[in-house]
Amino acid sequence: MLKPLGDRIVIELIEVEEKTSSGIVLPDSAKEKPQEGKVVAAGTGRVLENGQRVDLEVKEGDRIIFSKYAGTEVKYEGNEYLILRETDVLAIIG
Amino acid sequence: MLKPLGDRIVIELIEVEEKTSSGIVLPDSAKEKPQEGKVVAAGTGRVLENGQRVDLEVKEGDRIIFSKYAGTEVKYEGNEYLILRETDVLAIIG
Amino acid sequence: MLKPLGDRIVIELIEVEEKTSSGIVLPDSAKEKPQEGKVVAAGTGRVLENGQRVDLEVKEGDRIIFSKYAGTEVKYEGNEYLILRETDVLAIIG
Amino acid sequence: MLKPLGDRIVIELIEVEEKTSSGIVLPDSAKEKPQEGKVVAAGTGRVLENGQRVDLEVKEGDRIIFSKYAGTEVKYEGNEYLILRETDVLAIIG
Amino acid sequence: MLKPLGDRIVIELIEVEEKTSSGIVLPDSAKEKPQEGKVVAAGTGRVLENGQRVDLEVKEGDRIIFSKYAGTEVKYEGNEYLILRETDVLAIIG
Amino acid sequence: MLKPLGDRIVIELIEVEEKTSSGIVLPDSAKEKPQEGKVVAAGTGRVLENGQRVDLEVKEGDRIIFSKYAGTEVKYEGNEYLILRETDVLAIIG
Amino acid sequence: MLKPLGDRIVIELIEVEEKTSSGIVLPDSAKEKPQEGKVVAAGTGRVLENGQRVDLEVKEGDRIIFSKYAGTEVKYEGNEYLILRETDVLAIIG
Repeated sequence: MLKPLGDRIVIELIEVEEKTSSGIVLPDSAKEKPQEGKVVAAGTGRVLENGQRVDLEVKEGDRIIFSKYAGTEVKYEGNEYLILRETDVLAIIG
Repeated sequence: MLKPLGDRIVIELIEVEEKTSSGIVLPDSAKEKPQEGKVVAAGTGRVLENGQRVDLEVKEGDRIIFSKYAGTEVKYEGNEYLILRETDVLAIIG
Repeated sequence: MLKPLGDRIVIELIEVEEKTSSGIVLPDSAKEKPQEGKVVAAGTGRVLENGQRVDLEVKEGDRIIFSKYAGTEVKYEGNEYLILRETDVLAIIG
Repeated sequence: MLKPLGDRIVIELIEVEEKTSSGIVLPDSAKEKPQEGKVVAAGTGRVLENGQRVDLEVKEGDRIIFSKYAGTEVKYEGNEYLILRETDVLAIIG
Repeated sequence: MLKPLGDRIVIELIEVEEKTSSGIVLPDSAKEKPQEGKVVAAGTGRVLENGQRVDLEVKEGDRIIFSKYAGTEVKYEGNEYLILRETDVLAIIG
Repeated sequence: MLKPLGDRIVIELIEVEEKTSSGIVLPDSAKEKPQEGKVVAAGTGRVLENGQRVDLEVKEGDRIIFSKYAGTEVKYEGNEYLILRETDVLAIIG
Repeated sequence: MLKPLGDRIVIELIEVEEKTSSGIVLPDSAKEKPQEGKVVAAGTGRVLENGQRVDLEVKEGDRIIFSKYAGTEVKYEGNEYLILRETDVLAIIG
């Protein structure tokens, strides 16, 4: 299990099937990097200058949209994950 | 539904019809990027260093003017949105 | 009406007639960008890290001098405005 | 009258007569930019993150030395001024 | 013994055996820099602006994943270590 | 008299006689910039975000070592001074 | 005596004898810059925004490992020292 630190989260990428306007499914190399993910683990939050810890808004299981190119790719037990800071999460899909 | 995080908002672009001074409507590629939008969803606000959360000034339904090139384009359920930070909002059209 | 956010203000430019030392009025393209404006609307002020909101020093109707090239040009209902942060205002003409 | 904002001050430049070591008075274009000024108006001070306003150390009438190239040149009612932040003032000539 | 300061930690690298998809074990020079380590010593934590010291989330003995290229390589008593800031630790392997 | 502002100090340079290893005194242009000075005047200290003013550690008369190239050269009543921030002072020679 | 200011320390370099893997002692110019030092003097600590002074973790006499290329070289009474900020100290050798 991966336990992210502070304001970090671990996500699995969600592959969104992408077609061109003429209906052709694009091969992998022609697609933009995915922007959707599912939260697998969330950190304990960041610590403010007054010592208070702020809970993350994002929770395990949330589907999120995140900034392209954000985060670090990590391979763990054969699976690929992305570790982001919560500030790179744009929105939760609710 | 898209739930933006922190001080972020989700907006729909408002296309402003643009004519040249001689009255000719410009085709899309010749226009500047739009600067007007309608707020579709607003985040819960940013957290200050004393732990207090500051409500956004911008509310769902507001028409806003925002900084050109700010934000991230997001496609969700076939629609296009822009996710901005409130600090990129210049003014509310009231 | 344009309601600027936070520490922003909306101003109208004041054209200052500019002559060369030999008394010739310069055509528009030869002049420097104007540095004077009249405040049309002022934001609610910026929020400090202790949650307190600081009123702007600048008020509606003030004539101001501002940093050249600061701010964002905005066209609204046929008029041109500039939206600045108060920190770009150098002085009030009192 | 020019009322500078926050931690800004308005100064008049003081031309310091500059001679080369051989006693020749330099023409204007060969001199360095002046570094001395007289304070014509001082702002109300900067606001700290606890909401307290800090009075400027510099007062109207003070002669100061300031960082070369700092500030913004402003022409007002035929006179030339420089608007600086107090942090660009190196010392008061007392 | 190495006692790291503040929010720093000392780690030993954990070599992860890396094969290409065709099953060939890569020689050392062809591998990416390792991203896994074991915490050998942890600092006393960083000091907040209110004077409070924040304990590190990472403890001696933890296996961690860290940002590639982060930290400083140090040789001590014949062994090689890496000294990182806790902020370069992405996740604890739990 | 020069009264430096905030965390600034005014120093006089102390010329340190510099010889090469073979005992030759170097002419002025071949020497490094001096790093030693004597404090002629000290500011009132910097203001913290809680409004408290922090006294400088450096006092008038102290001999100091400072960062090469730091500060601003100032000529006043025929003498040359350097105005530094206290943060550019490396150590007091005690 | 050198009294470093704030969060600075004065150290003496400790030359670590360096051999190549084949046992050859490297001449001085082929070695990396030393990373070990002994603390000769420590400052009074940095001042937090609440006015509190934080004691340094490093004390006179400590052997430390520090970031390569950090600090400023200083010659005093014929000896060479390095003046660092405590933040450039990676670990104490305990």
